[in-house]
Order: sequence, then C-alpha cells, then structure tokens
Amino acid sequence: MDSDKAMVIFQPSGRRGEVPRGITLIEASRLLGVDIEALCGEKKVCGKCVVRIEEGHFEKYGVTSGMQSVSPWQVEEEKYINAERRKKGFRLGCVATVQGDLLVFVPEESRAGKQVVSKAARDIHIDHNPAVKLYYVEVDSPTFEDPMADFERVCKALERDYGLSNLTVDIFTLRTLPTTLRDGNWKVTVSVWNEKEVIRIRPGKDANAYGLAIDVGTTTVAAYFCNLTNMAVVDTVSMMNPQCKYGEDVMARITFHMTSTDGLQRMSDDIIEGLNDLIDQAIANTYPPKKKKKKKKGEEGPDEFIEVPEEGKTYLRLTRDDIEDITIGFNTAMHHILLGLNPEFVGMAPFPPVIHHSMDIKARDLGIKINPSSYLFVLPNEAGFVGADNVGVLIAEEPYKHEENQLIIDIGTNGELVLGNRHKLISSSCATGPALEGAQLSFGMRAAPGAIERIEIDPQTKEVNYKVIGRDAWRKYSEPKEMKAKGICGSGILDVLAELYSSGVITKSGVFNKKALKDCTRFRINPDNKQPEFVLAWAEESSIDKDIVISQKDVRQIQLAKGALYAGCKLMVKRMGLEKVDKVKIAGAFGTHVDRTKALIMGLFPDCEIEMIQSVGNAAGDGCRAALLNVKKRVEANWCSRNVEYIELTVEPTFQQDFMEAMQLPHMKDEFPHLRGIVPDEILDQ
Amino acid sequence: MDSDKAMVIFQPSGRRGEVPRGITLIEASRLLGVDIEALCGEKKVCGKCVVRIEEGHFEKYGVTSGMQSVSPWQVEEEKYINAERRKKGFRLGCVATVQGDLLVFVPEESRAGKQVVSKAARDIHIDHNPAVKLYYVEVDSPTFEDPMADFERVCKALERDYGLSNLTVDIFTLRTLPTTLRDGNWKVTVSVWNEKEVIRIRPGKDANAYGLAIDVGTTTVAAYFCNLTNMAVVDTVSMMNPQCKYGEDVMARITFHMTSTDGLQRMSDDIIEGLNDLIDQAIANTYPPKKKKKKKKGEEGPDEFIEVPEEGKTYLRLTRDDIEDITIGFNTAMHHILLGLNPEFVGMAPFPPVIHHSMDIKARDLGIKINPSSYLFVLPNEAGFVGADNVGVLIAEEPYKHEENQLIIDIGTNGELVLGNRHKLISSSCATGPALEGAQLSFGMRAAPGAIERIEIDPQTKEVNYKVIGRDAWRKYSEPKEMKAKGICGSGILDVLAELYSSGVITKSGVFNKKALKDCTRFRINPDNKQPEFVLAWAEESSIDKDIVISQKDVRQIQLAKGALYAGCKLMVKRMGLEKVDKVKIAGAFGTHVDRTKALIMGLFPDCEIEMIQSVGNAAGDGCRAALLNVKKRVEANWCSRNVEYIELTVEPTFQQDFMEAMQLPHMKDEFPHLRGIVPDEILDQ
Repeated sequence: MDSDKAMVIFQPSGRRGEVPRGITLIEASRLLGVDIEALCGEKKVCGKCVVRIEEGHFEKYGVTSGMQSVSPWQVEEEKYINAERRKKGFRLGCVATVQGDLLVFVPEESRAGKQVVSKAARDIHIDHNPAVKLYYVEVDSPTFEDPMADFERVCKALERDYGLSNLTVDIFTLRTLPTTLRDGNWKVTVSVWNEKEVIRIRPGKDANAYGLAIDVGTTTVAAYFCNLTNMAVVDTVSMMNPQCKYGEDVMARITFHMTSTDGLQRMSDDIIEGLNDLIDQAIANTYPPKKKKKKKKGEEGPDEFIEVPEEGKTYLRLTRDDIEDITIGFNTAMHHILLGLNPEFVGMAPFPPVIHHSMDIKARDLGIKINPSSYLFVLPNEAGFVGADNVGVLIAEEPYKHEENQLIIDIGTNGELVLGNRHKLISSSCATGPALEGAQLSFGMRAAPGAIERIEIDPQTKEVNYKVIGRDAWRKYSEPKEMKAKGICGSGILDVLAELYSSGVITKSGVFNKKALKDCTRFRINPDNKQPEFVLAWAEESSIDKDIVISQKDVRQIQLAKGALYAGCKLMVKRMGLEKVDKVKIAGAFGTHVDRTKALIMGLFPDCEIEMIQSVGNAAGDGCRAALLNVKKRVEANWCSRNVEYIELTVEPTFQQDFMEAMQLPHMKDEFPHLRGIVPDEILDQ
Repeated sequence: MDSDKAMVIFQPSGRRGEVPRGITLIEASRLLGVDIEALCGEKKVCGKCVVRIEEGHFEKYGVTSGMQSVSPWQVEEEKYINAERRKKGFRLGCVATVQGDLLVFVPEESRAGKQVVSKAARDIHIDHNPAVKLYYVEVDSPTFEDPMADFERVCKALERDYGLSNLTVDIFTLRTLPTTLRDGNWKVTVSVWNEKEVIRIRPGKDANAYGLAIDVGTTTVAAYFCNLTNMAVVDTVSMMNPQCKYGEDVMARITFHMTSTDGLQRMSDDIIEGLNDLIDQAIANTYPPKKKKKKKKGEEGPDEFIEVPEEGKTYLRLTRDDIEDITIGFNTAMHHILLGLNPEFVGMAPFPPVIHHSMDIKARDLGIKINPSSYLFVLPNEAGFVGADNVGVLIAEEPYKHEENQLIIDIGTNGELVLGNRHKLISSSCATGPALEGAQLSFGMRAAPGAIERIEIDPQTKEVNYKVIGRDAWRKYSEPKEMKAKGICGSGILDVLAELYSSGVITKSGVFNKKALKDCTRFRINPDNKQPEFVLAWAEESSIDKDIVISQKDVRQIQLAKGALYAGCKLMVKRMGLEKVDKVKIAGAFGTHVDRTKALIMGLFPDCEIEMIQSVGNAAGDGCRAALLNVKKRVEANWCSRNVEYIELTVEPTFQQDFMEAMQLPHMKDEFPHLRGIVPDEILDQ
C-alpha cells in the first residue's frame, strides 16, 4: 500500500477505501460517500460529527504506542465529548485526522439522514398561461414550385393556424426538424416558448408537456412536477440540499466559498447534480416499479427486471425531454451558488446581490438535463437576504392585491418577513439561526424519521407525550417495535417551547421552574455539563440509547431565534405605522406542520386573533409553480422584487431593546389578549 | 502485436502506427494524421489518391507468396495506374486495404497541400454599426441606503449615460460581474449585443473589441479579423476546409453523411475544430514571433522561447475573449454540416434547406471558443443550392440598389448566379463541378505552391510561358532552383482554355488542331491512354518529375464546366427578358485572379463590354464582413434571402440545347463582338 494513503472503513455503511493520510475523518467520509452531519461547516462548533474509532487506533496499537491511526486528542473536542465517551473512542470527525488504517463507526445521531420533506402542493388559484405552449400543425411538403425550407414551412403553418409570427428556433431543436417533419408525415407538434422561440418539435399530435417548479432551500429541495397543459401536479419530489455537507446555513457556505479555492464550483456542481437526480426521480416515478425476475434453477447470466404495474394505475412513461420548462426559487445565496455567481458580497454589508432581475437561462448552460432547448426561469431576488424564494411567497400569497395588512413569516435558516397590503409592501430578514430547524440544539435534527414533531406536556404531572415522524400514533399508544425517537425537528421545537411554558416547566423568562419541578424525575442537572435539562424521551424509547433532553442552553437558543423573529415583526409593524396586523401567514419548509396556537403561545410574532393566523406551507414553492403555469406571474415577480421596500432591521435604534424583550415568553411587556383562556392566567400573568 | 492490427508507416512524413487490418490506405492515413487527396470522397473516381507500396507487399513477401500486406489489385485501379506504375507498386489509396505491416510512400501529387488562399479584404464601403458595441460607465458603489444589485447598478449607469434600457445579461458574463466591478473600482467597459444583452464586462476603460467574418467554402475557409470599433481589418487568416478529406464537393460530403453512421458529427466536429485553429492562428498573430533561447554550454532543462518583435511594430496581444462577435457565410450544405443539421434533403429534389433565416447562436453552443457569452451570426440561406455565401455576395455588391442589370457569377465547386437590379433579382446555381477549381483534371490541383496560375501560349511557336504560385517571375525568367511546377490551379485553367483556343492549339469545338500542331513537340498522343495531349511544362521543369500536360479529356471537362455556367447565365438573361447585361461581376475564391479578357475569350458568360467585366474577389467574405461591422446588413441579408427568386435551370426546356451550344469556344452561335481585335478574326470566325 502507498505509504501516503491509509485504508478507512466506515460502519455501519461498510463503505471503504484508501484515502490520503492527514485528512480529517469528515473529509475521508466525503471521499468515500459517507454522509456525516457537518452542520457548522467544519468550524468545530456544532459537535454534530462525533464518530467512534473502532479499530486501528485502539486495538491494534494502543493510545500510547506512538503508532496512532488517528491524530492526537484536541482540546476543542472536550466541549462535545466527555471523559467517558473519550475512553470509548469517540472523536470529532472535523478534528481527528487519518494517520493509519481505521475502522470508524458513525453513530445514528451523527448520520445525515434523508429528510422527510412535506411540501405537498396547496390548492391555490393559478390562471393557465404557461411559457411553453404546444401547437399542432399540418405542414405542406416541399415541391419544385415551393422549395421553401423546413423551418419557414413550419412557421408559415403556425402563422396561418395560430397567428404566431417572427419565431426563432433553438439550434438543438432545429437539428431534429428535418427528420421529425418527415417521420411525422409533415404533421408535428411544436413547443413554443414565450411565443418567441421553438424549443421542441415532435412528430404527430401530442397534447402534453411537463415542467418542474423547484424550490431550492438551504436545507431541502422540493419540486412540483406539473403538466403544463392541464396544470395537474403529477408528482412532488424532494431531497436534501447536497450542499448541507459544506455547512448548515447560508453564511457557512459563503465562508466555504471564501476559504477554499474551488468551493463555489463544488457547491454549484453538487446542487446541479442533485437537481439532475431529482429530475431522474420524477421521471422514474412515471414508470411502474420493477422487481427482479426469478431465475430458473441453474440459470446463469445477469439479473433481469420486470415491471410490476399497480392495478388500475396508468403510467406516463416520460423521458427527460418531456420536461420542457423549469421555474426555480431560492434565497439569494443559494441562487448565487447554483448559478455560479460569487456569493461573497451577499455576505458582506451592505449585502448587494449580483442581480435582482429574473433570468431565462438555457438549462443546458447550467448542465441541467431536460429537453435540450428548454429554459430555466430563475425568479428575481429582492435583496441580499431576501431572495427569489420570498418573491415566490409573494406571488403565491399576493398581499399586494388585498386591502388588509398581511404579515408573512417565512421561517427558514433565515427568517424572511413581508408586511403590507395593496398600497405598500416592506420586507426584511432576521437571523433566526438554524435553531428553529433543529440545528445547534443538543438533540435537534432535521425532519427525518425518528424526529419528534409534536409534543404535549401535562401541566399537572409534567408527563410528556410526543409523536415521531415515521410513526402514526402518539407515544402512549405506540408499540415499542415501532419507530423510536432520535431527536427533535423544527415543528417539535416550536411545540416544546410553548408546552414547557404553558405547562409551567419553564418561566416567562425561559428558566426552568425548579420549584414546580422539584418532584419531577424528568428534570435534572446534567452531571457532565452541570446544565439543567428536561427529559423528553427516555433512553429506552430512543433509537440512540440515550435520554433525549432539552437543556437550558437549548431553550435559550430557541428564545434567541423567536426573539429575533418577534422583534423583526414588531419593528416592521411600527415602520408601517400600524397598531396590529390583520392576518399572519406562516410559511416555510415546515409551515404546514406549525400549530398556530403554539406559535402564538411561544410568541413567534405579536398578538393576533388565532383565526387570522394561517399556515400557508411551502408558499415559495407555490409561487414557483404559479410562475411555471402562468407566465404573467413572472412579470408580477419582477414587479415584486423591485417594489417591495427592503428594510435593514439591525440598524434600527430600538432593535437591541426589542430583541431582548421579545426573548421572553410570549413577550416581556406586550399583551397577548388572544391567549386568555388558552394559557392559564397564572402563567400569562407571571 | 495484436493480430487484428498492422503497423503502417507513411513516407515522407514518417507518421506511423498500428491500424486495424482490412481498412483502406486512405482510412489508415486519416487515423495516422496523414493528408492524402481524396477529391471524390473515396468513390474511386478521381484517381488522386495514388500511393506507392514500398515495403511489405513487395520486398518481404512477393506478389505471389499469398502473404500479401495489401489487398489484391482491383480492376478500378487500371483506369488511373498503368502497367508500368503498377509494377512499381502504385495503388489507389481508396481501394487497397491493409493486410499486414506496410511502408507506404505518398507521392507529392497525392499530398493534400496547404492552399494559398488569396482572400484579401477589398475596400468596400460599410457603415459603422456593429452588433457588439462598447460602453464605458462609472457606477455608484452600494451603500446601506442603496443596496441595489451589481447588475441593476450597471444598467442604471448605462441608461443614464447612453439611454440603454431593458438589458439582459448572459450568465457567463454575470459570473464575472461582481469581481470585475470591484477590480475596476466601479468603472467598467460593457459590451452590449444588439442593444439587448450584456456579453462582456471589463474593468476600466477599453475602446477595442474584435470580430471575425468567416467564409466557409467547400474547399477553403477564410476569415477577416476585424476591429469592431474602427472597422480596420487587423488580419486575414485562412485554411483548407478540413472536411476535404471526406470528399471534394458538396454532394460527396452529403453522401458521406448518408453512408456512415457518424459522418455528420465527424464533419461538423472537424470544421469546428478547424475554426478554433483558425481563431488560434488569428490570436497568435497578435504576438511577436518567438525564437528558441540558446542554451549555455552544459545547460540542461526544457527549451525556453523568447519573443522577437519586429522593429517599429506594435502587437495587440489579444486573447480569445477579445473576439466578441462572429459572422459566418457558406453554401447551404456547408451551413448544414457545420451546424449539425441533416444535409440529406438539400441533396434531394426539390432540395429544401432546413432553414432560410439567419440565426444568432451562442458560439459556445457550437463549441467555438471565443468570448464565452458571444454570438455567432449565421447568414441566411437562399435555397438548397444557393446559400448564405451568395447572400454575402449580394449584400457586398448590392445589385438591388442599382438601376443597371448586374450578372454576378460566384465560381466555386458549385456556380452560383444572380441577375437583376433594384426592381427584381433572380438567382440560380449550376453544377460546374470542381474542374474550374482544378479537380478531376490530369494535373489539376488547388491554388497551392507549385500550381500554374497563369499561362500564355505563343500563337506562332506554340511555346508556353507560365507562372507558378510561390515564384514571382514567369517561367522564362526563373532560375531552376526556384519553385517548380506541380499542376494547374483554377485561374491557370481559365487561362489555359483561352490560350489554347486563341493560339489555335484547339479549335472552336475544343478539339486539338492536329494540322496546326504537326510540327509542335508539345503535342502528342499519350502512349498509355492513347489520348491526345499538350505539354504545358516539361518533366525537368516540374517538381513531380513528370510532364505536366492538358489532355483532350481535360479540355472537355473544362468545356463542360464553362458550358454549364454560360447556359445558366443565358437562361437567366432570357428569363429576365433582357438582351444583354450591363455589368458582369466575377466572384469566388479565385475571383481576384481571374483575367477578365480570358474569361470572355473562353466564353464563361455571354458577350459583354470588357470594361464592364469586374473581378470582385471574395465577395461572399466581404458580405460577411459587412454584416459583422454593420448590423443593418444582417436585416438586409434576410431581406435578400427571401426576395431573390430562385430559378431551377435544369428544368428549363432549352437547357440541354443551350448547354451543348455553350460548350464551344466561346460559343457555337452567339456573337462576341467585344472579342474583335483581341482574338484573331480567323480564330473567331472558324
């Protein structure tokens, strides 16, 4: 073996291979295709990438032998790995480097699981006017008297039958034209983009074209696969943003770009490859599932697969070429990274993006594999921290068409806020951090199987009831063999703070109420870090063999996030000269899961009539879908991006004070009359 | 050695390598990068690819041994290789296949030489209005009060200073924007295409942009390298069309596409690669020549090169990115092949092209390596056999702006004819074949060094004087050490027919005048083919060690070509209801070389005042240059392509009769009053 290399095996995946000595275990995991959580972008501050060294370092050579297979223990690791776990061989993947052959175990809590993305399409009204429309024409064939060229012949028929004129044609489509015309016996279906350009020609008559509306979030990517002709949502597909391995939030990725030579290229390549996988997934779903054909006794040769269609189900059997349009929305940093635009200045005051306006880009210019002549419509950006995704939210929710004042909160790693009505709209962003999405908490995790997504705490007994993703029933009705808890995801985190508060476990200021908890076995002081903590699930209910707790520090993290959001909302309301808003809409990847009452209890935004709080789900994705199916929405999007006034909240003189006050539950001073009767008065009036 | 392969060595180039057994020597030569003439596209009808088997077949194994290194002699070869040459080992490269190891000698006459392309830019009037224009702007930098995006910031400055609005930007340019703006301290030069799209941004102030006007001929490719700002022609570069190896004329290449699985792709790839080489050449010429740095005694390491600038000369030192626009013209088949469009139907009645209209194609979509966001403007096609090159001729010569009737003859492998004035224009094409370009004649060759380009024959002595390319003086003043003759190229062929006729060597009907030649040693019957022939250059004056002759068959070939042209001209004049034309313009790759008097003597077109005959050189290229420097010419080109009426001449009832009569010199019946006093009456009145 090359002495500069070492063999590393990761368990339980079993992936193995030679890697250069001296790289970190996280780097090795990437080389070998193993997903380890690296929420902080390897800045050694999240502690999520804990792994256990199983062989090599310990059994073969011993710690003191000097022939170590991993680099020596570092002081930064102490914060995340206590003495007992250290003895068992636990190390931080971003700190320990490969020094020799290794067998590494990745514990379940460190694995980057496949997120369950619930981004079903809502039933919003969209006028039918897609950018790509189909026209069937019967073309005259050429003669000596009329030897006109193929393309002009098609144009003539399109003008005669549909009044279309001055069409151009993409070179990739033109290449298919002569054969297609003759194969179709001079009868063809023409796809025309924006009444300008011919982007596909098929022989014969075909009524269907398809498109994708893609919402690229910092963490998740979801796409609506739509029929452009009848507007049906054929399928919804989603995946993790493959850039997560470079850091959980926008700033971590910008930092990765700035501190590596090819960071932008790598991140861009990864998301493009991811989108191609997503497209593959959407296409594959249009075919029946396959199963391996049983071999006859003694039969040799490669495995064969046969289709097993579900009864009564018809399959579209599409190809990549059948996808003829894409619309795409994202925050400004994801926009820049995907398009290969330097995101550096988006991360530096005064945060100017590279471009506001929407763009029509040939999908092939980005390496996105659909119909070769098709375009990708990139929604416009509002500002450095309010991106095209927020424009998507706007064109889906259309606050500019109403008299009432709407406050729209799009909760992501960055909170994006819009407030206003038909007369005026302002937007802003606030750094909530990833706490509301489950990161940076002791047991925070993404919305993946095993994540606690709902919590109830009994005000009397302080007993906890919860529901995990992947298990239909709540804890008390579940059988042990079913999905066990592993951590808490975003919606569970909103629940937990509201429940801890309204059940009296924590006080208005977010401190554990020791008096009320004195007989509660769930409350304790952690022997390692001396932090107070509250047990949500006992080790025997968990799949990671540890008590799942929420610590005082976790509560503080959530308070910081919700405080930032509340302060932002309050300042915007003030800036608009309003007393209160008429309607609050909560959007976001987990928007559909939010319990609006609990969101009000924890004080995510100022008091409001509960009936006027609305979960609008993945409104950004709905906006992309609207732009896919109605080209006028694209014009509206550009109007939005330039007519929503961006407010930089952090420079407001009262911001710090407002933020501090808003960290309390639901708020230090502001009244919440609509919580009367829902939260006990003795709690509200603390 | 793999028994399916054999080692083949080509001399004198010395190129060698293993090739699959069973392929022809021409195919082997291509695999090994050796250029052998294959004018007929390997249809075994031109006899240009004669090679000599030096070893293997003969010396090692003997003809009768049965272990032959080449395939057996074929009957088709007898036509081109006589018994004596057969004994010496000569074979046709397109017939003989590799059966074992071989050493092959490629005689000079079979080598595809580098053509001398004389396509200097003429001084035609062009208004300055290029598609790509430069704008210098000083942009405000962003602040918290004005955090507008980089691109919108540039647009604002462009609108403020130049009134440009609604600009888009290519994604490749946008990627450079943030860094360029900051590198240039917010002062940048912006290249805008058609007042629509930003295609380049440079830091600071720069006044120069460059472009290429490319004329892709069937045989040669020439490009004018122009400064878009001051319209100067910086350089003229040219090369052979690398597709020549697939066949000399348009039909041979269409056939190659139809008879091979990837023929279109290969031909397209070859011409694109060729254009990139041409661009490299244009760029390289903007740097001083380099010479190898002398090493000190005992010094090791790789060779170093130093620049040796010519005194007083300034060098532009450009890069590929400095080329920001390209216009391109070609015949319809070359158009289709370069763009990857199926040329099959252009070769089949009623010959419809795939497209008439001009196209704006991103150069990168074709793999052409210039400024990454730049476009290529493809001139429009008139018809299947009258292509964008003829449109180029039209917009350069502008017959539609004059009252006088102009007849424009573009001589290429296909003759393209235009006739008309401001009221009406008609066009046609006639299959002249490649004879006028030097192919299919015993000693025909391209306009390369060693080609006879001018001939004079003394009417009394029948002595021949000639001038070859690469030698400044005529034969009688040249020293033997200078460039020797190798064959006859296009302009020499026009001369030779006129001189043979006006000196009385051949009669009006093109037959050798045996009576007049009875004492002339230059006239003889070829012992091999029993054909009468006339010696133009003796073996000792030639570089191929053979008498260079023009045979009776050669004369007939030229007559066929000129007859087709004349008949075409005559029918067009008739179709327009004219008695005679006011002006004749001769264009073509060798247009500038044509002696107008001799063109009239040989009867290339109907009688005309000699002063009204004009050589307009590479008018197609001039038209491309006009379209490069003046965007209005592009609109004019599209107007031309749809407003010139295409006439199919071969379907005219009198065509065959007209063609037959026109084969005589200058014509069987038509009068040539303007030749009186130039050609002796006794010759004219035969």
